[in-house]
Amino acid sequence: MKVLIVHAHPEPQSFTTAMRDLALETLQGQGHEVQVSDLYAMNWNPVASAADFVERENSDYLVYALEQRLGVKKGCLAADIQSELDKLLWADTLILNFPLYWFSVPAILKGWIDRVLVSGVCYGGKRFYDQGGLSGKRVLVSLTLGGREHMFGDDAIHGPLEDMLRPLLRGTLAYVGMDVLQPFVAWHVPYISHEERQKFLSAYQQRLETIGQDQPIEFPRLSQFDEFLYPLAQKS
Amino acid sequence: MKVLIVHAHPEPQSFTTAMRDLALETLQGQGHEVQVSDLYAMNWNPVASAADFVERENSDYLVYALEQRLGVKKGCLAADIQSELDKLLWADTLILNFPLYWFSVPAILKGWIDRVLVSGVCYGGKRFYDQGGLSGKRVLVSLTLGGREHMFGDDAIHGPLEDMLRPLLRGTLAYVGMDVLQPFVAWHVPYISHEERQKFLSAYQQRLETIGQDQPIEFPRLSQFDEFLYPLAQKS
Repeated sequence: MKVLIVHAHPEPQSFTTAMRDLALETLQGQGHEVQVSDLYAMNWNPVASAADFVERENSDYLVYALEQRLGVKKGCLAADIQSELDKLLWADTLILNFPLYWFSVPAILKGWIDRVLVSGVCYGGKRFYDQGGLSGKRVLVSLTLGGREHMFGDDAIHGPLEDMLRPLLRGTLAYVGMDVLQPFVAWHVPYISHEERQKFLSAYQQRLETIGQDQPIEFPRLSQFDEFLYPLAQKS
Repeated sequence: MKVLIVHAHPEPQSFTTAMRDLALETLQGQGHEVQVSDLYAMNWNPVASAADFVERENSDYLVYALEQRLGVKKGCLAADIQSELDKLLWADTLILNFPLYWFSVPAILKGWIDRVLVSGVCYGGKRFYDQGGLSGKRVLVSLTLGGREHMFGDDAIHGPLEDMLRPLLRGTLAYVGMDVLQPFVAWHVPYISHEERQKFLSAYQQRLETIGQDQPIEFPRLSQFDEFLYPLAQKS
């Protein structure tokens, strides 16, 4: 496998960073190629703006997705975006490794998504969901959070975690065509003992060792919808 | 009313920016006080980091939420965060105005959430949902997107928009105790005519004029859960 780990945590000694290091070691130990984008260490700029295009089709009015499409064609994407896009296209497996901030990714990682998943490559026109530009690649979301497991679920105070992760799992990763694996979740991390943390690391290592055989989550397929994206009548 | 509009769009001539201007004019025209945080114009830094604290409790290991709590007490929050927090606490009504990026807020706005909704003021301990630190304030999410309305809903290709917005509406805004109003949504904006855009602006103006009477969306209440946040048995 060719694996890209995108990591976003402001503390290099954090448990989330230990998860990144473990993933790197485990996957390399199995003979896979691994690249790491450590967004904090790279001082990654998360802000989508006009400066993301060396040359612009319309320098008077910014339509970001349009400039992305043209930037791809003309090779006009900013160097930091192109570099990340190259890594993403090289990889057959993506790991997003982060602490949950507001039931979502930290802003620095949201800005990797906003800027690197460019229109014209990752999506655009009818290239989305199972037809997305990154189909054939798989993605694992591995996250840490402060809450306890019983706070998530159908009757729980926050509802199911998968529902909170919907814009990421479905709206972003499945949208660009990737096979989205069940997230790996380390619960209540700031409050647990060293031994409990070691258990999460062991579980993560086991998960990583068999990640190539994981079954992805089911998401919509374009064949279930007509050309205007109205749902086709379900066969009974 | 005292209204804070937090606006995030990279193009000053955009329709989303026209919505911001309309909100400012409409609300001021009704005699309300309005402040605007234009995140792109302010060159807002969205990246939560150790630099967010003038002084740190633990300078060897960053626990972000912990430093927020202490930063609040000691007045050690970075000046840009304190300034936004002051505006937020001044306001009784918040408007988040943005284009939907990946079924979520643009990274620059996610970073406003990550950095400004500080622990110790907006949430912390048992201060969340109806007990949240910002209870009594109301919030309107007003957004533009490229998709058409029929692409969202129970059987639609993306599912209900409210489900995609869950980490924002429930996991963030309701979490800190705010009364969350039904979002205002302008559909398919990059592709529609001037006349259709004017209709959205008229609808938005009408909505703003009666925003003080809107009924908020229902969310969990802490009284439905025990002290460990397990759900209490439902009375039949």
